[in-house]
Amino acid sequence: MSEVTKVILDAMGGDNSPGEMVLGAVNAVKEKKDLFVYIVGKEDDIKEELAKYEYPADQIEVVHAPDEITCHDAPVMAIKQKKESSMVVGLRMLKEGKADGFVSPGNSGAVLVGGQAIVGRMKGIERAPLAPVVPTINGVSLLIDCGANVDARASHLVQFAKMGSIYMEHVIGIKNPRVGIVNIGAEEEKGNALVKETFPLLKECKDINFIGSIEARDFPYGAADVVVTEAFVGNVMLKLSEGLASALVKMIKQGLTATPISTLGAVMVKPQLKNTLKIFDTTEHGGAPLLGLNSLVVKIHGNATNKEVKNALFQVESFKKNDINGKIREHLLSEKEDV
Amino acid sequence: MSEVTKVILDAMGGDNSPGEMVLGAVNAVKEKKDLFVYIVGKEDDIKEELAKYEYPADQIEVVHAPDEITCHDAPVMAIKQKKESSMVVGLRMLKEGKADGFVSPGNSGAVLVGGQAIVGRMKGIERAPLAPVVPTINGVSLLIDCGANVDARASHLVQFAKMGSIYMEHVIGIKNPRVGIVNIGAEEEKGNALVKETFPLLKECKDINFIGSIEARDFPYGAADVVVTEAFVGNVMLKLSEGLASALVKMIKQGLTATPISTLGAVMVKPQLKNTLKIFDTTEHGGAPLLGLNSLVVKIHGNATNKEVKNALFQVESFKKNDINGKIREHLLSEKEDV
Repeated sequence: MSEVTKVILDAMGGDNSPGEMVLGAVNAVKEKKDLFVYIVGKEDDIKEELAKYEYPADQIEVVHAPDEITCHDAPVMAIKQKKESSMVVGLRMLKEGKADGFVSPGNSGAVLVGGQAIVGRMKGIERAPLAPVVPTINGVSLLIDCGANVDARASHLVQFAKMGSIYMEHVIGIKNPRVGIVNIGAEEEKGNALVKETFPLLKECKDINFIGSIEARDFPYGAADVVVTEAFVGNVMLKLSEGLASALVKMIKQGLTATPISTLGAVMVKPQLKNTLKIFDTTEHGGAPLLGLNSLVVKIHGNATNKEVKNALFQVESFKKNDINGKIREHLLSEKEDV
Repeated sequence: MSEVTKVILDAMGGDNSPGEMVLGAVNAVKEKKDLFVYIVGKEDDIKEELAKYEYPADQIEVVHAPDEITCHDAPVMAIKQKKESSMVVGLRMLKEGKADGFVSPGNSGAVLVGGQAIVGRMKGIERAPLAPVVPTINGVSLLIDCGANVDARASHLVQFAKMGSIYMEHVIGIKNPRVGIVNIGAEEEKGNALVKETFPLLKECKDINFIGSIEARDFPYGAADVVVTEAFVGNVMLKLSEGLASALVKMIKQGLTATPISTLGAVMVKPQLKNTLKIFDTTEHGGAPLLGLNSLVVKIHGNATNKEVKNALFQVESFKKNDINGKIREHLLSEKEDV
């Protein structure tokens, strides 16, 4: 029998907590024998949800945490003061080595702060980037960094490129992933001070497949597999993509039902349209990993459904089995020796 | 009779040059008696196009320029060396006060460089931002700055906010326009160093209607009328919006014709869908003004059609009639006195 992967699931803090969290865990352990899930949160609520399903009871354990970090909490304060929240309890368990990864739908800022403060960065990693896998017209791209660590330096971006490459190759399965840096023109001399400083450093990296600058216009077409950028820009790109897609879909839906004929047509195109828009479904690829920590922390959407929860749990398994942190360590060590 | 507005139109350097440029000018002068257009470029080609139409001949004059700046030229070099290009000839005419504005579909970088180098910034203006009017689900927003002047300082962003407000109020006609700064969270303490420094300065400005941070997610919903950001981020937002909209539309079209039933339905929804997507038609609002120069420079799309050309010519008229530069000067002078 293969080794068991243990995951800590923060059942609170999401829009669908704890119902969808629990169902995601139940579906995950039913599908994989070698998966064990600690569900952390309000014990009574979680057990009430668990009672609805049949599942292998020896693969799930409920860990009581009476408090909860909400989306209204200020991240740093919440992590410091809400010691009995599901997020802090879960991150502490991860720090203590009780599991291989931690998954949370909760307050993004708090996950970022808590991951760094409680779990800690790997030695040699300067920053821990949040790196969501974003759907494109031709597959998926890793957008790294979308976190809260703004005003990055060039050396940070180089580490992001390396960690992102390892993740895309070994977790998502893209051989020799193309690394691009977000820029405002395709030429090497273009860009702001940070991009101009980072570009030659990426060009020198032998262990990544650097293809140069990519323009934001080509991002939805999958211009690179690993899209490197500073967190402020990455965050803007991620949120603008979400906002624009939702605005367009909303408008198209309104447009389709504007006349009786178009409404009839809308019924006929609906299944195909749904299929098309599914490509932009971010729940397929689990959550956004916070890379470079001592253990894996995954942020899933606040409104994550059981499918996203299940995929995030599997993502931890894949991260562990492919020894991503070992590979990151290896690349960093060899880099340090070079210097 | 009201005063004549004179516009210099760079007929070269666009995908549809000079055909659509000439037709745009012809339609514009046919519609407005008090408009005069200098069409600059290869005289023979322009005259050949003009010969196709009937129009008031006393409202158009062709100015010969034998050379052309293409999209492959490096901006600074091109402006320096291609002295007989339509762009440089046109910008020089503007500098000499022969017209009220200059419109070009050519090389964006060259328009930005040429505008600043040849026409020059107004006294007191630290940077000349490129400020396209971008369609949103609820109207339009001015995205300022999308130019090539990256790594802006807080004082630049404050000027952008003021110039943008004047433009939106007096050219686009939005009373007391809401000014927002692009940020990665709605709270005042969020953001990168630049945003944190700029936020309190904008809050203090009495002559703008500052509403605080806006997240990129809300940009397509028209969260602010004047959306202030540093040029790198603005450029990324503009290009990502264009890329994502085109990718989505492409996918939807493919999806609609995937089955016989959906294809039949597609025929029925097509007129409404077209209407819906027209909202994202950027050609309605002319081009992107380069604000803060001694005279108005407008960059239209490289693939601009005659409609966009015509609207850009009208935009110059509106800019002149509303004395936008006078208003900008007034605000800057009072600011200088305050200091």
